[in-house]
Formats: sequence, structure tokens, C-alpha cells
Amino acid sequence: MLRGLDFFGTVVFAISGALVAARKSMDWMGFSILATVTGIGGGTLRDLLLGRPVFWIVHWEYIVICVVTALATFYLLRHVHRRLSWLLWADAVGLAAFSVLGVQIALTSGTSPFIAIIMGMMTAAFGGLIRDVLAGEPPLLLHREIYASAALIGGVVYVLLAVVLHQPIWALIVGFVAALIIRGLGIVYHWHLPAARAS
Amino acid sequence: MLRGLDFFGTVVFAISGALVAARKSMDWMGFSILATVTGIGGGTLRDLLLGRPVFWIVHWEYIVICVVTALATFYLLRHVHRRLSWLLWADAVGLAAFSVLGVQIALTSGTSPFIAIIMGMMTAAFGGLIRDVLAGEPPLLLHREIYASAALIGGVVYVLLAVVLHQPIWALIVGFVAALIIRGLGIVYHWHLPAARAS
Amino acid sequence: MLRGLDFFGTVVFAISGALVAARKSMDWMGFSILATVTGIGGGTLRDLLLGRPVFWIVHWEYIVICVVTALATFYLLRHVHRRLSWLLWADAVGLAAFSVLGVQIALTSGTSPFIAIIMGMMTAAFGGLIRDVLAGEPPLLLHREIYASAALIGGVVYVLLAVVLHQPIWALIVGFVAALIIRGLGIVYHWHLPAARAS
Repeated sequence: MLRGLDFFGTVVFAISGALVAARKSMDWMGFSILATVTGIGGGTLRDLLLGRPVFWIVHWEYIVICVVTALATFYLLRHVHRRLSWLLWADAVGLAAFSVLGVQIALTSGTSPFIAIIMGMMTAAFGGLIRDVLAGEPPLLLHREIYASAALIGGVVYVLLAVVLHQPIWALIVGFVAALIIRGLGIVYHWHLPAARAS
Repeated sequence: MLRGLDFFGTVVFAISGALVAARKSMDWMGFSILATVTGIGGGTLRDLLLGRPVFWIVHWEYIVICVVTALATFYLLRHVHRRLSWLLWADAVGLAAFSVLGVQIALTSGTSPFIAIIMGMMTAAFGGLIRDVLAGEPPLLLHREIYASAALIGGVVYVLLAVVLHQPIWALIVGFVAALIIRGLGIVYHWHLPAARAS
Repeated sequence: MLRGLDFFGTVVFAISGALVAARKSMDWMGFSILATVTGIGGGTLRDLLLGRPVFWIVHWEYIVICVVTALATFYLLRHVHRRLSWLLWADAVGLAAFSVLGVQIALTSGTSPFIAIIMGMMTAAFGGLIRDVLAGEPPLLLHREIYASAALIGGVVYVLLAVVLHQPIWALIVGFVAALIIRGLGIVYHWHLPAARAS
């Protein structure tokens, strides 16, 4: 189930990378690179910071998943409408999946629950962040809508259920759903946190 | 004293990140993320390159310091005027603190003095660099004013006093002050190195 | 010969970084930083991902090579015309050299040939990618012309000759030449892969 959620998160993030490549009129190599970087970026940073072997060097199927997803998106694109909204939702599902998985892997590596939640946020946010930086777009992560907060809440829910109540399976499910609902409400209602006024 | 200088550098870099978040009208989550990335970015890169455990995974108080600094900056902001000049000075103090600390930690890890000075420059410059890249601003590091040169001089002074004269405490103090003075003169007098003409 | 090709790749990538610094009218410190980041960036990412000691911490001469190259480019620049075309060719030679070297080093570290080819592409592409991101330019890697494809083909040729036919020397030479020809044809004829239409 863990592996399933992980593949699922990788695929949706890869789609989000490919959709940004489409907006920038890239070729299929650009699609593949941006999809792969988005799909594996967060987990790569997490593994480097935790001093673990980088996951996709052992499990090369993640790279294949990202490239196949990118090519499928490239060829199916003509049938897709309203792409920006698809991008936001693909990104939201990946965010929710990776926030709980990141916490889970960090706890397995022996970090404190606090640091594990931070690692979950990084795993969830970093792939989308490099996607946006490479594409020259203002990072979703930093602008206005409820984004990192959703990953934070997913991580806190995971820790409460897994560490405090010892329900690791429910922690994954409820944490994922909680993060997705928060981010989804943010997308639908354009929720945002109070911002500083520029001067 | 080391720990004190390190906390101090983290706080001022976190402030510089929060001030950039303010210029970009971010919400408090954006403030927290940009402050944290700026505050811990340089030390994180240094630890990854040196193969040491990443400092904030063990010492989680650095994350708390960055977030608290970000929130304090967010709520106190309405009383702050002339923010751009505050940003330059907060960045300068962080630069000076992290240039000597980076050299010191690299030497402890067994690198040569030359590589230690490079590590000091990276520790000092990388946090501000990702801050600028994420915010979509031209990096301070690369444009015109004496910036990296100040970190270089702080590192050289540290090595001269600590490695050659065996005065580690004076090395920290004099190196920090030297880097701060050079960068400060650069800010006040708009000093810059000769630049290439664009063609 | 390996070391020679590596120094050669570092020098040409450092030149490409310095030429971008020239276009952005940077001072000699900006030249040095952008040249160094471009010259050592790909190998640094490769070593971090493979869990090897970062090469330039042991072999500090790489840093010296980058800085000397940057300063030479800075002072010789007034005699250089048609700089953009020089930039593309310096970048192409570095790309070809690092794609085969990256594969070779990854195989030595025990990765599978598939992952080694990915590592070769990263080694070849990452230096130029951070160069472009730091300079605020759209990454060459992601836009239109045959770029990553050249590194991919260089890596595949290397693996065929070194792993399948056990000809490591010929693998280096033929892989390098193949990558350079592909990229060179891309530059000369403005070859590009079919791209998605923006909507």
C-alpha cells in the first residue's frame, strides 16, 4: 500500500511537471525532464538530507514511471482541455501523498516527530518548487493559496495517528485525505492566508 | 560563543528572508518558508558537501528560530520603514557570521584551508542565493556590489589567525568584523568591482 | 586520459559560465562564481546522489581551474566576438565530455547501466542548468534544441561499447564524439524535437 501511494504520488507529480512543460511548449525531452524532476525531486532531497541512499538509484522504476507518464501526457495532450485546473489538482494529489509518505520515511530513519513533519513538507513541496523555478514561474509554494499548510496538516495528522495512537495505516489514509481536502478547498474557494501588504 | 554566533547568523538571515517575503506580499507561511530556507540553506549545503549529518535534523531548534523570527517579522512589519536597507544589513551580518563559521566547521571536518575558505563562502552565500532565486529576484551574490569578496576576506582572516597563529577565538571575532566592514563599506559607498561591459 | 577529459570538460563549462557572466555585465567575482558553479555543478550533484565524497573537496585543483578560467575569460573578453555562438559551443563540448564521464563514474560506483546513463545526463546537464537559473535565463536544457538527447546518446553509446563490448577507451572516445556531433548538428541546423503547442 505504501508503494502504491508512492507510485501514485510520483505519477500525479510527473503529470503536473508535464503540464507545465506543455504550457511552455517544450518538446518530449523537456516533458520527460520536467516530469522526472517534479516526480522524484522531493524524495531525492529528503533522502539526501536524511543521509539515506537516494531511492530511485535502487528503484529505477520511478524514473521509468516519470518518463512514461511524460510521454503519455505529451501524446494525449490534444484531448485535454482546461489544463491549468488539471495541473492544480494533479499537484494537490501529489502534495497530499508525499506529505504523509515523507513523514513516515523520516520517522523510520529515526528523526523526531517535529523534524519528520518538516521532512514531509519538504518531500511534498520540493518537486513542485523546482518544477516552477526551472519553468520560470512564480512558485505555487510561496504564493497566496493554502499550499504548504496542507502538507503541514497532513503531517501533523499522520504523527498524531501513527506516533500517539499507533495506527499507522489509518495515519496514512486520514493524513492523505486531510491534506487533500485542505488543499482542495484552497483551490476551489481560492482560500489564502492573510498576506503582508507590499510597500 | 560559537553557538551564539550561529544562532545570531541564523536569525539575521531569517529576517532577510522574511523581508523579501514582505516585498513579495507573501502570507505568513511564505514568510516562514523563505526565512527558514535563507536561515538554514547555507549550512545545509555545507553539511551535504562535507558528508556530515545535516545540523538542523539533530538541532531542531534552528527551524523553530527561523519560524519564530519569520512570524515576529510578519507581525512587527507595520512599524518598519526603509525595509530594503534593513534587508541589506541583515544579509550583511548573516554573511559575516556564516563565512567564519563555515570555515571553522569545514576545518573541523578535516578539509584543507583552501577548501575551508570555499566552504565558508558557500555557507555564507547559499541561503541568500536560494532566497533570491525563489523570490524571482536577481541574486545579490552575483550583481555588482562587494558581496562574495567580503565572505572571502572573512575566511582568509579566519584561516590566518586560526591555522597560522593558532588564535581560534580571535580568528572568529576578527574574521567576522573584517567581513562585516568590507560588506558594510560596499553597502554604504556602493563599492563594486570592475565589471565586464555587456555587448 | 580520464583526468584529461575531465579537466577539459571543466574548463569549457567554466568558460560557458564566464560567457553568461559577461552577458550579464558581472564583475570578476561574479565571473568566478558562475564559472565555478557551471564547471563543478554536474559532478557535485552526481557525487551527492551516489553517496561518494564530493570530488573537488579532495581534488581542490578543480576550483582553481574554474577560477583561473573565469579570470582569463574576463581579461581576454575584449578580443572575443560573436560570444553567444562561443557559449553554445563551449557548452556543447562540456556536455559531451561530462555525459560519458558521468556514466563511467556511476558504473564504477556500482549502479545499473540504466541509472548510469541517467547520472551521465545529470552530470552533463546540471552545471549548465544552475548557470542559467542563477543568471535568470530560460534553461538551454529545457528549450527546443537537441540538448539532453545528445547526452542521452553519448551515454547509450558508452554503455554499449564499455559494458556490452568491453571497450572502455573506445567507449569514452566514441561516446564523446557521438554526443558532440548530435549537439553540434543541433546548433548548426537548429534541430529540435517536435514540441507541444501552447494553448
